[in-house]
Amino acid sequence: MSAETVNPLNDGNVSGSDEELIDPAFALHRGGKMAVQSTVLVRDQDDLSLAYTPGVAKVCTAIADQPNLVHDYTWKSQVVAVVTDGSAVLGLGDIGPHASLPVMEGKSILFKQFGGVNAVPIALDCREVDEIVETVARLAPSFGGVNLEDISAPRCFEIEHRLQERLDIPIFHDDQHGTAVVTLAALRNAARLTGRTLGELRAVISGAGAAGVAISKILVEAGIGDVAVCDRKGIISHDREDLTEVKRELAGFTNKAGLSGSLASALKGADVFIGVSRGTVPEPVVASMAKDCLIFAMANPDPEIHPAVAHKYAAVVATGRSDYPNQINNVLAFPGIFAGALQVRASRITERMKLAAADALAAVVADELSANKVIPSPFDERVAPAVTAAVATAARAAGVARR
Amino acid sequence: MSAETVNPLNDGNVSGSDEELIDPAFALHRGGKMAVQSTVLVRDQDDLSLAYTPGVAKVCTAIADQPNLVHDYTWKSQVVAVVTDGSAVLGLGDIGPHASLPVMEGKSILFKQFGGVNAVPIALDCREVDEIVETVARLAPSFGGVNLEDISAPRCFEIEHRLQERLDIPIFHDDQHGTAVVTLAALRNAARLTGRTLGELRAVISGAGAAGVAISKILVEAGIGDVAVCDRKGIISHDREDLTEVKRELAGFTNKAGLSGSLASALKGADVFIGVSRGTVPEPVVASMAKDCLIFAMANPDPEIHPAVAHKYAAVVATGRSDYPNQINNVLAFPGIFAGALQVRASRITERMKLAAADALAAVVADELSANKVIPSPFDERVAPAVTAAVATAARAAGVARR
Repeated sequence: MSAETVNPLNDGNVSGSDEELIDPAFALHRGGKMAVQSTVLVRDQDDLSLAYTPGVAKVCTAIADQPNLVHDYTWKSQVVAVVTDGSAVLGLGDIGPHASLPVMEGKSILFKQFGGVNAVPIALDCREVDEIVETVARLAPSFGGVNLEDISAPRCFEIEHRLQERLDIPIFHDDQHGTAVVTLAALRNAARLTGRTLGELRAVISGAGAAGVAISKILVEAGIGDVAVCDRKGIISHDREDLTEVKRELAGFTNKAGLSGSLASALKGADVFIGVSRGTVPEPVVASMAKDCLIFAMANPDPEIHPAVAHKYAAVVATGRSDYPNQINNVLAFPGIFAGALQVRASRITERMKLAAADALAAVVADELSANKVIPSPFDERVAPAVTAAVATAARAAGVARR
Repeated sequence: MSAETVNPLNDGNVSGSDEELIDPAFALHRGGKMAVQSTVLVRDQDDLSLAYTPGVAKVCTAIADQPNLVHDYTWKSQVVAVVTDGSAVLGLGDIGPHASLPVMEGKSILFKQFGGVNAVPIALDCREVDEIVETVARLAPSFGGVNLEDISAPRCFEIEHRLQERLDIPIFHDDQHGTAVVTLAALRNAARLTGRTLGELRAVISGAGAAGVAISKILVEAGIGDVAVCDRKGIISHDREDLTEVKRELAGFTNKAGLSGSLASALKGADVFIGVSRGTVPEPVVASMAKDCLIFAMANPDPEIHPAVAHKYAAVVATGRSDYPNQINNVLAFPGIFAGALQVRASRITERMKLAAADALAAVVADELSANKVIPSPFDERVAPAVTAAVATAARAAGVARR
């Protein structure tokens, strides 16, 4: 690992605790992980007169006359805001906007490296849904899209929905949709590998937060046989009276079988386990799943079912961890999804575009499928171009492209 | 001029009006003028595990425990927001946030090129003072400073004041203070060149907008003999009953001589003319100024007094234009001022820091003074380091530095 920072603002003073001085993560983060660069040269007065006053005035006037030109003559359509309030950061919970910044910077550099998309961390010092919606809406002229990140449920659902209603740029909550796209891609390939279609599978999702809700939606749209979602109190079904609005909605389009009861009862005979929760599933419950079951235990750092246990019963095992095969990693999705959306100046990211992203992602390794390779590696260079192209095409087909 | 854009989001389609296709300003602006770059490498899983999960979690936790570490381990203290509402852009007026973006990008790349400071354009879709203040305050966790830009007077005064009261990062309205710092630097050198001190000079400022107010303040702080400020209705004095709050305040600390009447009457016998307005000053009025007067006619693109006319009467002539000597260009100030403030993590930019910036800027050419060189060229590489160092030192002396 080499940090290539050339930082004129940093005078080289280094101080800190022992952990900070020794741990490579701290060394890597010193001074931050990103910078802005000029893509034009300003070497002399002539350059300055074009890039700034007086030359820039012509460009401003042209945009004032024809607002659509903002996409051609500024970086708006090349840059997304990575917006958080720091309320649900990684597994760390509510650590606030300042402490969330290293994650938002990390996300921003992954956008760049994997999708060629510029991204700017915007960590907000506010918490009310109204405040976040209003603030992002006011910022929107400067950005071609908004990636919502690490905002706690259920606020994240309403924030995303209201912003997309209001703005004509893509709003995408990655904790929901990025996870859902990658999960669907891996599940498609796992089904294919084991000679089944999605329609033949009954899935159980453990966790009804941002990821669980989005995965259940995309699985239903993709034609899953049935899917039951479990929260801490068990299977989400119509007969429960403690459901939030989001969970009532979930009960409306999941669990066709009308199951009720515990996660353990849902898993009996199930074909698919998808874990986006904390907590663990006891081995006897795992053993009760159907033959050739598919286990995606994605909790980090501790999967709901340890891979060693899962492999005793499952045909395919996936986790959220990089040190096991089949890592469900959002970086496989969000860079290409935004790159495709921005390329055609999409006004939103539709369900069809997400499904297209999942299909394209799955197709990358379709000819190389094995139980340990139902999803590409994050460093597979075929991924982002494939997702980008599929999303751009789907945006055109969905009628949300503007070029 | 060569645009070095390497832009994976741009598919190379070029269309536009004849002007857009021919004018080099449009060619330069295509796709925008800036990009984000990663300052760390993410080549493999090990790199990814440090820059993003799980390694990043340790850094987040450390900041949550010790908030001050955000300056060490994120780019917060390396980046400023360039914030506008598009209400007073260049000489174009109220063209709105989208059309203002080319200017904000231009400003951002000048920050980088001249001061090594990262800057991000934030063009806001709101106009009320309350809204702008609230929005910028919510964004503040992500930035080490805020450069307010092209926000119309008198709102700009209240916005800057309220934000600085509320936040512990520097808030700097460049249209006010950048202009004031460069003007003072040039005036110091012009006075020195003509064998006078500031205390011996009586100045007249034409224009009581953002720049005029800030210049009058810094001149008084620097010890000018007297300064009268004129708006469209004439000299601002206590006997006027049409004054806004800001102008009443101006009347309180300017115009010691108690002049009233027209700009022409103010200029009779005056030593200094500073134009930050529109409109022109007739030659007979110029002729009525004192011997060896100093004329800074800074309106763009048409100086209030044409340099050919000014030279007939003045010992030193400065303008806002790059095609005449002595250009009063803000790029001489804002990059170094922010670089210095960020370097020591200043909580604000005090008057003392602005005066120090002006002195340092003037000193760069102190040994090379001539009537055509009272201020350095924007491309003089000595400028930013000198201003940066002076501002950092002054911040420490003023007790607003945090390192």
